[in-house]
Amino acid sequence: MTLLFSDREVTAALDAGTTVDAMRDALRAAYAGRLVAPPRAAASLGGGRMVLTAGHLTGEWYGFRSYDTFGHPEAEQVVVLHDGRTGAVRAVAVGEELGSRRTGGLGGVAVDALARPDAATLGVIGSGRQAWTQVWAAAAVRPLREVTVYSRSAARREAFAARVRAELDVPARAVESARAAVRDRDLVVLATTSPTPVLDAANLRPGTHVNAVGFKQRDRAEFGTDLLDVADLLVTDSPAQASAYAPPMLAADPPYAHRLLDLGAVLAGAATGRTRADQISVFCSVGLAGTEVFLLDRLVAVGAAAAA
Amino acid sequence: MTLLFSDREVTAALDAGTTVDAMRDALRAAYAGRLVAPPRAAASLGGGRMVLTAGHLTGEWYGFRSYDTFGHPEAEQVVVLHDGRTGAVRAVAVGEELGSRRTGGLGGVAVDALARPDAATLGVIGSGRQAWTQVWAAAAVRPLREVTVYSRSAARREAFAARVRAELDVPARAVESARAAVRDRDLVVLATTSPTPVLDAANLRPGTHVNAVGFKQRDRAEFGTDLLDVADLLVTDSPAQASAYAPPMLAADPPYAHRLLDLGAVLAGAATGRTRADQISVFCSVGLAGTEVFLLDRLVAVGAAAAA
Repeated sequence: MTLLFSDREVTAALDAGTTVDAMRDALRAAYAGRLVAPPRAAASLGGGRMVLTAGHLTGEWYGFRSYDTFGHPEAEQVVVLHDGRTGAVRAVAVGEELGSRRTGGLGGVAVDALARPDAATLGVIGSGRQAWTQVWAAAAVRPLREVTVYSRSAARREAFAARVRAELDVPARAVESARAAVRDRDLVVLATTSPTPVLDAANLRPGTHVNAVGFKQRDRAEFGTDLLDVADLLVTDSPAQASAYAPPMLAADPPYAHRLLDLGAVLAGAATGRTRADQISVFCSVGLAGTEVFLLDRLVAVGAAAAA
Repeated sequence: MTLLFSDREVTAALDAGTTVDAMRDALRAAYAGRLVAPPRAAASLGGGRMVLTAGHLTGEWYGFRSYDTFGHPEAEQVVVLHDGRTGAVRAVAVGEELGSRRTGGLGGVAVDALARPDAATLGVIGSGRQAWTQVWAAAAVRPLREVTVYSRSAARREAFAARVRAELDVPARAVESARAAVRDRDLVVLATTSPTPVLDAANLRPGTHVNAVGFKQRDRAEFGTDLLDVADLLVTDSPAQASAYAPPMLAADPPYAHRLLDLGAVLAGAATGRTRADQISVFCSVGLAGTEVFLLDRLVAVGAAAAA
């Protein structure tokens, strides 16, 4: 029997700790070669494309996420999980929550692996779904003392701060500039839809860790090369996907490409992460393929455990 | 809210007449350029591929079918229907029934458009799911007087004949050779998994219509060029897909290619179908892309109508 998860069920069943743990396991599996995650495949439909990102955890499961590029107001993604032995469809998730939670979870793993152990303040630019799941996951790996948020809409940033206070029980306030949001923070999240820089790297203090979730390509990026220049550590969740962007991803282009580390390698101890408290680390999130299916598999396991 | 259909719900809700009508509408829409159905897209997962065939009925809906090539025993397909205006996922179907019914429905349209109006006897080679839906759909467009069936397994062909009698209320008998199944029949269905010919075209009488559902490529086909040589009419549901096969589809290769007609064009009156009772017509089924989503849309409409 196939389980169907809507956003409501995903929200109810998938907490931040579980999500971060699942994404850590996924990154380790990908680095070990057990999670097969090929380039995305797409079909042009006139006015938009149907896109599929697939994944296969050898011996366990395979499946995919689908999304489209029509830009419709209520566009929903679909994630499908097949049993790796029988081929049967174990679960289908429809909506946005699973996808944004997995991106948040990957960001949480990055914070856990790369930020200072004592990081406690977080500044976020952006107030959308991706901004939320980044803060949600960060709060699961570091005991946050304060969140500051800036986005262009005063109403939206105020609502975001209120949600942080209510749902994460963390003091939070909306501020009136990007600079005010990120200044003197231990953790910074960039999660905007801006194609031009929203951050001045000069406003970051030594020791800051940055999760960059929005556009990060040449001529279309929410940050400039000034961020890469001040960074001591550049890390991504998929070097292969990072180098496949067109136009190129800033951090996968010279002179930064040779410094770009695989988060999976850092987790495995095969690459060196933060070594000093004053280093600036930057995580360039690309959304390792196959991780949505990985998270759906974990969601099914959590549900099964709860029912048993 | 997303509707989830399993094979059981598809079986209960989708009768042959509705299915054939839907596939006729789909073929007309494709011929008119309203149904966009691009080439399939695939992602390699190590040991198998995840394949997506997408479709878009302009202004109405878009979506896809996914299937894989691992060859697992209980492999299931997924069909996803998005609302064309909002992007929301209206329905998901999981299983095999929707896919085989749409192939049956396309075969039913071919029989209706190309077979003699008085066709009443049907011989089928093959006793699997595809063989069944071909007979199921044919019975919806011609009042069948008798069905003969051959497949290698005596038990399976007897069970198939019994099912025809029970579910379609048509006299049916299993026979001991392919020749006995197709000789003196008005309609012939080839629906095997054989890579070599199972039919001798010399056994067909003038006036027969053939639906060929299995392999039909050079060096891998359930019929030989003798069938194409005796055919007065060669028709397919997608000339574009037919010409994209590798190795080439027999009927899309010289010297047959220039004779291969689009079933949609025949329906629209833009190509000439059967003109004489003694002509042999052959329908080379390729499974027009987008038709699974078309059928899921119709299934949702039927369900909505029943609930209203």
